Amino acid sequence: MKLLQEKIRKEGEVLSETILKVDSFLNHQIDAKLMLEIGKEFAERFKEEEITKVITIEVSGIAPAMAAAAYLDVPLVFAKKTKSVTMDENVYSSQVVSFTKGVTNTIQIAKRFIDEHDKILIIDDFLASGNALVALNEIINDSGATLVGTGIVIEKGFQKGGEKLRKEGFKIESLAIIEKMGKEGMIFKK
Amino acid sequence: MKLLQEKIRKEGEVLSETILKVDSFLNHQIDAKLMLEIGKEFAERFKEEEITKVITIEVSGIAPAMAAAAYLDVPLVFAKKTKSVTMDENVYSSQVVSFTKGVTNTIQIAKRFIDEHDKILIIDDFLASGNALVALNEIINDSGATLVGTGIVIEKGFQKGGEKLRKEGFKIESLAIIEKMGKEGMIFKK
Repeated sequence: MKLLQEKIRKEGEVLSETILKVDSFLNHQIDAKLMLEIGKEFAERFKEEEITKVITIEVSGIAPAMAAAAYLDVPLVFAKKTKSVTMDENVYSSQVVSFTKGVTNTIQIAKRFIDEHDKILIIDDFLASGNALVALNEIINDSGATLVGTGIVIEKGFQKGGEKLRKEGFKIESLAIIEKMGKEGMIFKK
Repeated sequence: MKLLQEKIRKEGEVLSETILKVDSFLNHQIDAKLMLEIGKEFAERFKEEEITKVITIEVSGIAPAMAAAAYLDVPLVFAKKTKSVTMDENVYSSQVVSFTKGVTNTIQIAKRFIDEHDKILIIDDFLASGNALVALNEIINDSGATLVGTGIVIEKGFQKGGEKLRKEGFKIESLAIIEKMGKEGMIFKK
């Protein structure tokens, strides 16, 4: 997605060979109009899949996932990392190691929001090691629902999570795939 | 907002006289189309205010805030509760006690995303005690920006935060104000 690649090139800060900071439009400040464009693009790429629900993980997946859900006209469910007093006891849960935060989180989705009739599209902001995606897929499998596709805003192609998961059969559409990054900037996969 | 009140009446679960669970469209599963309607309504109510930025707190404020930001055509910034490795050191911060989670969080906004030229609209999912709003207002004051309005999806009118803050001069627009709730259901302010 050209618009997104330009935005990453212009505003993304390469903090190391593996850490990209996109706080100005995705992870802290959010470019709402860009998110709508991203959502529209995901909806277009997965329009044949008869998706019934979009799933993401809080926090930074919510904005692009909401936009995709709006264009697909289906609900969005975000997996929670913390328990609220209003949280169901009846949940599917899974473990995920966060690459950027260096912690292991238990993520949870209430059982009543996902079942065997659902065709799920996962949307997330980043794909690096693929840990979050594997954890969400576990929850989807537990529920009996079908994962029909995954939409990623930015894939760190050099971290091989995407490559590995595609080999395992995951259908992943990434709007920007970074092949290499460093002090000289970044190279996107064409 | 009639559509929202109907949704709350139909799907909201009154867990006690103070706790309302709206997990099916706002706090866990999100009705994306409804969020767009909510965002449109906020944009309409604050269209005269020359807003330059929408601010919210992660997590549940993000969906309605993003929709409002999209309609107002301005960026959204969400205050963070946890530090990420890509988080700026240079932040405004404030303390907020969460009513539903029973914990005190430090919320933070990077200084580069808010300054004295900004006219801010705060959007949040709930207004109860008003603690979150006060904490966000502290950050806005520290930055030199101006808070021009606050848009709330659901106000718990019986918890008096809104009443108190309106007296202090906050311009608050709540799309649904619950005056009373209990086993018999709920009464909205007309």
